[in-house]
Amino acid sequence: MQNNNPISQLIKILNALPGIGGRSARRIALHLITNNNTGLLQLSDSLKNIHENIKKCEICNNIDTISPCTICSSEKRDKKTICVIADVMDLWAIERSSSYKGLYHILGGILSAIDGVGPDDLSIDRLVNRIKSEEVTEVILALSATVDGQSTAHYITDKLSEFKELKITRLAHGMPIGGELDYLDDGTIITAFKSRLSI
Amino acid sequence: MQNNNPISQLIKILNALPGIGGRSARRIALHLITNNNTGLLQLSDSLKNIHENIKKCEICNNIDTISPCTICSSEKRDKKTICVIADVMDLWAIERSSSYKGLYHILGGILSAIDGVGPDDLSIDRLVNRIKSEEVTEVILALSATVDGQSTAHYITDKLSEFKELKITRLAHGMPIGGELDYLDDGTIITAFKSRLSI
Repeated sequence: MQNNNPISQLIKILNALPGIGGRSARRIALHLITNNNTGLLQLSDSLKNIHENIKKCEICNNIDTISPCTICSSEKRDKKTICVIADVMDLWAIERSSSYKGLYHILGGILSAIDGVGPDDLSIDRLVNRIKSEEVTEVILALSATVDGQSTAHYITDKLSEFKELKITRLAHGMPIGGELDYLDDGTIITAFKSRLSI
Repeated sequence: MQNNNPISQLIKILNALPGIGGRSARRIALHLITNNNTGLLQLSDSLKNIHENIKKCEICNNIDTISPCTICSSEKRDKKTICVIADVMDLWAIERSSSYKGLYHILGGILSAIDGVGPDDLSIDRLVNRIKSEEVTEVILALSATVDGQSTAHYITDKLSEFKELKITRLAHGMPIGGELDYLDDGTIITAFKSRLSI
Protein backbone atom coordinates (compact mmCIF):
# COMPACT_ATOMS: atom_id res chain seq x y z
CA MET A 1 0.00 0.00 0.00
CA GLN A 2 1.67 3.23 -1.16
CA ASN A 3 1.22 6.50 0.70
CA ASN A 4 -0.53 8.45 -2.06
CA ASN A 5 -3.19 5.76 -2.36
CA PRO A 6 -6.82 6.88 -1.60
CA ILE A 7 -7.11 4.12 1.01
CA SER A 8 -4.01 5.37 2.87
CA GLN A 9 -5.39 8.90 2.68
CA LEU A 10 -8.71 7.84 4.23
CA ILE A 11 -6.87 5.94 6.98
CA LYS A 12 -4.77 9.04 7.68
CA ILE A 13 -7.86 11.28 7.96
CA LEU A 14 -9.67 8.77 10.21
CA ASN A 15 -6.55 8.40 12.37
CA ALA A 16 -6.59 12.17 13.01
CA LEU A 17 -10.09 12.00 14.58
CA PRO A 18 -10.30 12.03 18.39
CA GLY A 19 -10.00 8.59 20.00
CA ILE A 20 -9.19 6.72 16.79
CA GLY A 21 -5.77 5.03 16.66
CA GLY A 22 -4.00 3.41 13.73
CA ARG A 23 -5.65 0.01 14.07
CA SER A 24 -9.17 1.43 14.48
CA ALA A 25 -8.63 3.72 11.48
CA ARG A 26 -7.63 0.75 9.29
CA ARG A 27 -10.55 -1.32 10.57
CA ILE A 28 -13.09 1.46 9.91
CA ALA A 29 -11.64 2.17 6.45
CA LEU A 30 -11.87 -1.50 5.51
CA HIS A 31 -15.41 -1.74 6.89
CA LEU A 32 -16.47 1.28 4.80
CA ILE A 33 -14.78 -0.02 1.64
CA THR A 34 -16.07 -3.57 1.84
CA ASN A 35 -19.64 -2.37 2.54
CA ASN A 36 -19.09 -0.09 -0.44
CA ASN A 37 -22.58 0.76 -1.63
CA THR A 38 -24.19 1.66 1.67
CA GLY A 39 -21.87 3.14 4.31
CA LEU A 40 -19.38 5.03 2.16
CA LEU A 41 -21.77 7.29 0.25
CA GLN A 42 -24.14 7.65 3.21
CA LEU A 43 -21.32 9.01 5.38
CA SER A 44 -19.98 11.20 2.58
CA ASP A 45 -23.42 12.73 1.95
CA SER A 46 -24.10 13.20 5.65
CA LEU A 47 -20.83 15.14 6.04
CA LYS A 48 -21.58 17.32 3.01
CA ASN A 49 -25.09 17.99 4.34
CA ILE A 50 -23.67 19.10 7.68
CA HIS A 51 -21.07 21.29 5.99
CA GLU A 52 -23.81 23.07 4.05
CA ASN A 53 -26.52 23.33 6.71
CA ILE A 54 -25.07 23.55 10.18
CA LYS A 55 -24.57 26.96 11.78
CA LYS A 56 -23.75 28.30 15.22
CA CYS A 57 -26.68 29.80 17.17
CA GLU A 58 -26.14 33.57 17.43
CA ILE A 59 -27.66 33.60 20.92
CA CYS A 60 -26.36 30.56 22.82
CA ASN A 61 -23.52 29.17 20.56
CA ASN A 62 -25.31 25.84 20.10
CA ILE A 63 -24.92 24.15 16.68
CA ASP A 64 -28.09 23.56 14.67
CA THR A 65 -29.60 23.88 11.18
CA ILE A 66 -31.20 27.21 12.16
CA SER A 67 -29.97 30.28 14.06
CA PRO A 68 -31.38 31.10 16.64
CA CYS A 69 -31.30 27.35 17.39
CA THR A 70 -34.29 25.08 18.03
CA ILE A 71 -33.95 25.51 21.79
CA CYS A 72 -33.60 29.33 21.76
CA SER A 73 -36.53 29.73 19.35
CA SER A 74 -38.81 27.16 21.05
CA GLU A 75 -41.97 28.48 22.70
CA LYS A 76 -41.98 25.57 25.14
CA ARG A 77 -38.72 26.42 26.90
CA ASP A 78 -38.57 28.48 30.09
CA LYS A 79 -36.92 31.76 28.98
CA LYS A 80 -36.27 32.86 32.56
CA THR A 81 -33.50 30.34 33.24
CA ILE A 82 -30.11 30.09 31.53
CA CYS A 83 -27.87 27.07 32.07
CA VAL A 84 -24.19 27.96 31.50
CA ILE A 85 -22.12 25.07 30.10
CA ALA A 86 -18.65 24.62 28.62
CA ASP A 87 -19.47 23.02 25.26
CA VAL A 88 -22.05 21.37 23.00
CA MET A 89 -21.34 17.88 24.42
CA ASP A 90 -22.63 19.14 27.80
CA LEU A 91 -25.82 20.44 26.17
CA TRP A 92 -26.40 17.06 24.51
CA ALA A 93 -25.84 15.28 27.85
CA ILE A 94 -28.35 17.50 29.69
CA GLU A 95 -30.92 17.23 26.86
CA ARG A 96 -30.61 13.41 26.93
CA SER A 97 -31.49 13.44 30.64
CA SER A 98 -34.66 15.52 29.90
CA SER A 99 -34.19 17.14 33.30
CA TYR A 100 -34.04 20.77 32.18
CA LYS A 101 -36.49 22.91 30.23
CA GLY A 102 -34.77 26.34 30.23
CA LEU A 103 -32.28 27.93 27.82
CA TYR A 104 -28.53 27.38 27.51
CA HIS A 105 -25.42 29.47 27.12
CA ILE A 106 -22.34 27.68 25.75
CA LEU A 107 -19.08 29.31 26.84
CA GLY A 108 -16.93 27.48 24.29
CA GLY A 109 -14.52 26.11 26.91
CA ILE A 110 -13.42 26.88 30.47
CA LEU A 111 -10.74 29.17 31.86
CA SER A 112 -7.42 27.36 31.90
CA ALA A 113 -3.98 28.74 32.70
CA ILE A 114 -2.26 25.64 31.27
CA ASP A 115 -4.13 25.72 27.93
CA GLY A 116 -3.89 29.52 27.79
CA VAL A 117 -7.67 30.10 27.78
CA GLY A 118 -8.55 33.53 29.24
CA PRO A 119 -11.92 35.27 29.82
CA ASP A 120 -11.78 36.90 26.35
CA ASP A 121 -11.67 33.47 24.67
CA LEU A 122 -15.00 32.52 26.23
CA SER A 123 -18.47 33.85 25.49
CA ILE A 124 -18.84 35.57 28.89
CA ASP A 125 -19.58 39.14 27.70
CA ARG A 126 -22.40 37.81 25.54
CA LEU A 127 -23.85 36.04 28.61
CA VAL A 128 -23.80 39.35 30.54
CA ASN A 129 -25.57 41.07 27.61
CA ARG A 130 -28.23 38.33 27.51
CA ILE A 131 -28.98 38.81 31.20
CA LYS A 132 -29.19 42.59 30.64
CA SER A 133 -31.59 42.36 27.69
CA GLU A 134 -33.64 39.21 28.43
CA GLU A 135 -35.85 38.61 31.46
CA VAL A 136 -33.62 36.10 33.20
CA THR A 137 -34.23 35.27 36.86
CA GLU A 138 -31.82 32.33 37.36
CA VAL A 139 -28.41 31.34 35.99
CA ILE A 140 -27.35 27.73 36.61
CA LEU A 141 -23.59 27.21 36.37
CA ALA A 142 -23.33 23.59 35.15
CA LEU A 143 -19.53 23.46 34.85
CA SER A 144 -17.19 20.54 35.59
CA ALA A 145 -16.30 19.92 39.24
CA THR A 146 -12.60 20.42 38.43
CA VAL A 147 -10.29 23.24 39.51
CA ASP A 148 -10.62 24.95 36.10
CA GLY A 149 -14.40 24.47 36.04
CA GLN A 150 -14.80 25.92 39.53
CA SER A 151 -12.57 28.94 38.85
CA THR A 152 -14.63 29.64 35.70
CA ALA A 153 -17.77 29.46 37.87
CA HIS A 154 -16.21 31.91 40.38
CA TYR A 155 -15.23 34.31 37.61
CA ILE A 156 -18.75 34.30 36.14
CA THR A 157 -20.34 34.71 39.60
CA ASP A 158 -18.15 37.79 40.06
CA LYS A 159 -19.11 39.20 36.66
CA LEU A 160 -22.82 38.69 37.42
CA SER A 161 -22.69 40.25 40.93
CA GLU A 162 -24.01 43.55 39.46
CA PHE A 163 -27.44 41.92 38.91
CA LYS A 164 -28.81 42.06 42.44
CA GLU A 165 -32.10 40.26 41.66
CA LEU A 166 -30.45 37.37 39.79
CA LYS A 167 -30.31 33.93 41.42
CA ILE A 168 -27.04 32.11 40.64
CA THR A 169 -26.95 28.37 41.35
CA ARG A 170 -24.64 25.42 40.71
CA LEU A 171 -25.32 21.69 40.29
CA ALA A 172 -25.28 19.56 43.46
CA HIS A 173 -22.14 17.58 44.31
CA GLY A 174 -22.34 14.12 45.85
CA MET A 175 -22.48 10.40 45.13
CA PRO A 176 -23.35 9.54 41.52
CA ILE A 177 -26.53 7.44 41.23
CA GLY A 178 -25.49 3.79 41.01
CA GLY A 179 -22.06 4.69 42.43
CA GLU A 180 -20.49 2.51 45.11
CA LEU A 181 -19.14 4.19 48.22
CA ASP A 182 -15.78 2.44 48.29
CA TYR A 183 -15.01 3.49 44.72
CA LEU A 184 -15.57 7.21 45.42
CA ASP A 185 -12.68 9.62 45.84
CA ASP A 186 -12.15 11.44 49.15
CA GLY A 187 -13.28 14.82 47.83
CA THR A 188 -16.68 13.46 46.78
CA ILE A 189 -17.20 11.63 50.11
CA ILE A 190 -16.32 14.79 52.08
CA THR A 191 -18.74 16.90 49.96
CA ALA A 192 -21.49 14.29 50.19
CA PHE A 193 -21.19 14.24 54.00
CA LYS A 194 -21.20 18.03 54.26
CA SER A 195 -24.29 18.34 52.04
CA ARG A 196 -26.20 15.45 53.65
CA LEU A 197 -30.01 15.79 53.68
CA SER A 198 -32.56 14.58 56.22
CA ILE A 199 -34.77 11.74 54.96
CA MET B 1 -31.60 17.58 19.48
CA GLN B 2 -34.32 15.95 17.38
CA ASN B 3 -33.79 12.65 15.60
CA ASN B 4 -34.19 13.89 12.02
CA ASN B 5 -31.47 16.47 12.57
CA PRO B 6 -28.36 16.11 10.30
CA ILE B 7 -26.13 16.00 13.40
CA SER B 8 -28.10 13.09 14.90
CA GLN B 9 -27.90 11.33 11.54
CA LEU B 10 -24.11 11.71 11.39
CA ILE B 11 -23.80 10.45 14.98
CA LYS B 12 -25.95 7.43 14.08
CA ILE B 13 -23.79 6.61 11.03
CA LEU B 14 -20.57 6.99 13.03
CA ASN B 15 -22.00 4.87 15.85
CA ALA B 16 -22.56 2.02 13.36
CA LEU B 17 -18.84 1.87 12.48
CA PRO B 18 -16.79 -0.90 14.12
CA GLY B 19 -15.37 0.02 17.53
CA ILE B 20 -17.19 3.37 17.82
CA GLY B 21 -19.66 3.66 20.70
CA GLY B 22 -22.19 6.40 21.42
CA ARG B 23 -19.81 8.70 23.25
CA SER B 24 -17.03 8.37 20.66
CA ALA B 25 -19.53 9.00 17.85
CA ARG B 26 -20.73 12.23 19.50
CA ARG B 27 -17.15 13.34 20.17
CA ILE B 28 -16.05 12.68 16.56
CA ALA B 29 -19.15 14.41 15.13
CA LEU B 30 -18.53 17.48 17.30
CA HIS B 31 -14.84 17.50 16.34
CA LEU B 32 -15.74 17.38 12.64
CA ILE B 33 -18.39 20.10 12.96
CA THR B 34 -16.35 22.53 15.04
CA ASN B 35 -13.33 22.14 12.70
CA ASN B 36 -15.80 22.71 9.90
CA ASN B 37 -13.75 23.93 6.97
CA THR B 38 -10.98 21.36 7.08
CA GLY B 39 -11.95 17.92 8.36
CA LEU B 40 -15.55 17.65 7.21
CA LEU B 41 -15.07 18.24 3.47
CA GLN B 42 -11.72 16.43 3.41
CA LEU B 43 -13.32 13.27 4.81
CA SER B 44 -16.38 13.61 2.57
CA ASP B 45 -14.21 13.96 -0.56
CA SER B 46 -11.94 11.12 0.48
CA LEU B 47 -14.94 8.79 0.86
CA LYS B 48 -16.36 9.82 -2.52
CA ASN B 49 -12.94 9.31 -4.15
CA ILE B 50 -12.75 5.79 -2.71
CA HIS B 51 -16.28 5.00 -3.81
CA GLU B 52 -15.40 5.98 -7.37
CA ASN B 53 -11.91 4.53 -7.68
CA ILE B 54 -11.48 1.47 -5.51
CA LYS B 55 -11.96 -1.99 -7.03
CA LYS B 56 -11.29 -5.56 -5.98
CA CYS B 57 -8.29 -7.25 -7.63
CA GLU B 58 -9.57 -9.96 -10.00
CA ILE B 59 -6.61 -12.20 -9.14
CA CYS B 60 -5.99 -11.97 -5.38
CA ASN B 61 -9.10 -10.08 -4.01
CA ASN B 62 -6.97 -7.22 -2.68
CA ILE B 63 -8.55 -3.73 -2.87
CA ASP B 64 -6.74 -1.11 -4.95
CA THR B 65 -7.26 1.62 -7.55
CA ILE B 66 -6.29 -0.83 -10.30
CA SER B 67 -7.19 -4.46 -11.06
CA PRO B 68 -4.98 -6.56 -11.15
CA CYS B 69 -3.72 -4.76 -8.04
CA THR B 70 -0.30 -3.09 -7.56
CA ILE B 71 1.11 -6.23 -5.95
CA CYS B 72 -0.17 -8.70 -8.59
CA SER B 73 0.99 -6.48 -11.45
CA SER B 74 4.39 -5.58 -9.94
CA GLU B 75 7.49 -6.90 -11.69
CA LYS B 76 9.45 -6.85 -8.44
CA ARG B 77 7.36 -9.47 -6.61
CA ASP B 78 8.26 -13.16 -6.55
CA LYS B 79 5.50 -14.80 -8.65
CA LYS B 80 6.43 -18.30 -7.44
CA THR B 81 5.09 -17.82 -3.88
CA ILE B 82 1.47 -17.21 -2.82
CA CYS B 83 0.65 -16.23 0.75
CA VAL B 84 -2.93 -17.23 1.66
CA ILE B 85 -4.59 -14.85 4.14
CA ALA B 86 -8.10 -14.29 5.52
CA ASP B 87 -8.63 -10.60 4.70
CA VAL B 88 -7.13 -7.29 3.55
CA MET B 89 -6.14 -6.29 7.12
CA ASP B 90 -3.74 -9.28 7.14
CA LEU B 91 -2.23 -8.15 3.83
CA TRP B 92 -1.67 -4.65 5.24
CA ALA B 93 -0.06 -6.12 8.38
CA ILE B 94 2.35 -8.30 6.36
CA GLU B 95 3.18 -5.43 3.95
CA ARG B 96 3.96 -3.14 6.92
CA SER B 97 6.47 -5.69 8.20
CA SER B 98 8.23 -5.72 4.76
CA SER B 99 9.09 -9.36 5.40
CA TYR B 100 7.47 -10.87 2.31
CA LYS B 101 8.01 -10.21 -1.39
CA GLY B 102 5.70 -12.78 -3.02
CA LEU B 103 2.04 -12.60 -4.08
CA TYR B 104 -1.10 -12.91 -1.95
CA HIS B 105 -4.41 -14.69 -2.10
CA ILE B 106 -7.19 -13.25 0.09
CA LEU B 107 -9.81 -15.85 1.06
CA GLY B 108 -12.37 -13.30 2.26
CA GLY B 109 -12.75 -14.92 5.69
CA ILE B 110 -12.15 -18.28 7.35
CA LEU B 111 -14.30 -21.40 7.67
CA SER B 112 -16.58 -21.04 10.67
CA ALA B 113 -19.41 -23.33 11.76
CA ILE B 114 -20.73 -20.69 14.21
CA ASP B 115 -20.82 -17.86 11.65
CA GLY B 116 -22.07 -20.23 8.92
CA VAL B 117 -19.07 -19.70 6.62
CA GLY B 118 -18.51 -22.73 4.36
CA PRO B 119 -15.88 -23.49 1.67
CA ASP B 120 -18.10 -22.00 -1.06
CA ASP B 121 -18.12 -18.60 0.69
CA LEU B 122 -14.33 -18.39 0.46
CA SER B 123 -12.14 -17.86 -2.59
CA ILE B 124 -10.63 -21.37 -2.44
CA ASP B 125 -11.49 -22.59 -5.97
CA ARG B 126 -9.86 -19.51 -7.41
CA LEU B 127 -6.71 -20.31 -5.40
CA VAL B 128 -6.64 -23.83 -6.88
CA ASN B 129 -7.03 -22.35 -10.40
CA ARG B 130 -4.18 -19.92 -9.77
CA ILE B 131 -1.88 -22.77 -8.75
CA LYS B 132 -2.90 -24.70 -11.87
CA SER B 133 -2.32 -21.82 -14.28
CA GLU B 134 0.58 -19.89 -12.68
CA GLU B 135 4.05 -21.20 -11.93
CA VAL B 136 3.68 -21.43 -8.17
CA THR B 137 6.18 -23.45 -6.14
CA GLU B 138 5.17 -22.53 -2.58
CA VAL B 139 1.92 -21.70 -0.80
CA ILE B 140 2.26 -20.10 2.67
CA LEU B 141 -0.87 -20.48 4.81
CA ALA B 142 -0.75 -17.34 7.00
CA LEU B 143 -4.03 -17.93 8.86
CA SER B 144 -4.85 -17.18 12.50
CA ALA B 145 -3.68 -19.69 15.11
CA THR B 146 -7.28 -20.27 16.21
CA VAL B 147 -9.43 -23.40 15.80
CA ASP B 148 -11.24 -21.88 12.79
CA GLY B 149 -7.99 -20.65 11.24
CA GLN B 150 -6.36 -24.03 11.61
CA SER B 151 -9.31 -25.98 10.19
CA THR B 152 -9.30 -23.62 7.20
CA ALA B 153 -5.59 -24.37 6.77
CA HIS B 154 -6.31 -28.14 6.95
CA TYR B 155 -9.07 -27.84 4.38
CA ILE B 156 -6.84 -25.93 1.95
CA THR B 157 -3.94 -28.36 2.46
CA ASP B 158 -6.33 -31.18 1.54
CA LYS B 159 -7.54 -29.34 -1.56
CA LEU B 160 -3.94 -28.73 -2.68
CA SER B 161 -2.75 -32.30 -2.11
CA GLU B 162 -3.21 -33.01 -5.85
CA PHE B 163 -0.22 -30.78 -6.63
CA LYS B 164 2.62 -33.16 -5.75
CA GLU B 165 5.44 -30.67 -6.46
CA LEU B 166 3.91 -27.84 -4.43
CA LYS B 167 5.49 -26.89 -1.09
CA ILE B 168 2.84 -25.94 1.51
CA THR B 169 4.07 -24.09 4.60
CA ARG B 170 2.57 -22.29 7.60
CA LEU B 171 3.89 -19.47 9.80
CA ALA B 172 5.95 -20.48 12.86
CA HIS B 173 4.25 -20.59 16.27
CA GLY B 174 6.07 -19.49 19.44
CA MET B 175 6.78 -16.58 21.74
CA PRO B 176 6.00 -13.16 20.22
CA ILE B 177 9.07 -10.88 20.02
CA GLY B 178 9.04 -8.65 23.12
CA GLY B 179 6.62 -11.06 24.84
CA GLU B 180 7.12 -12.01 28.49
CA LEU B 181 7.07 -15.68 29.39
CA ASP B 182 4.71 -15.41 32.37
CA TYR B 183 2.07 -13.61 30.29
CA LEU B 184 1.95 -16.36 27.64
CA ASP B 185 -0.89 -18.88 27.50
CA ASP B 186 -0.16 -22.59 28.02
CA GLY B 187 -0.73 -23.51 24.35
CA THR B 188 1.94 -21.08 23.17
CA ILE B 189 4.45 -22.25 25.80
CA ILE B 190 3.88 -25.92 24.86
CA THR B 191 4.30 -25.13 21.13
CA ALA B 192 7.38 -22.99 21.79
CA PHE B 193 8.98 -25.85 23.77
CA LYS B 194 8.16 -28.46 21.13
CA SER B 195 9.57 -26.31 18.31
CA ARG B 196 12.70 -25.23 20.23
CA LEU B 197 15.82 -24.62 18.13
CA SER B 198 19.48 -25.14 18.95
CA ILE B 199 21.48 -21.94 19.33
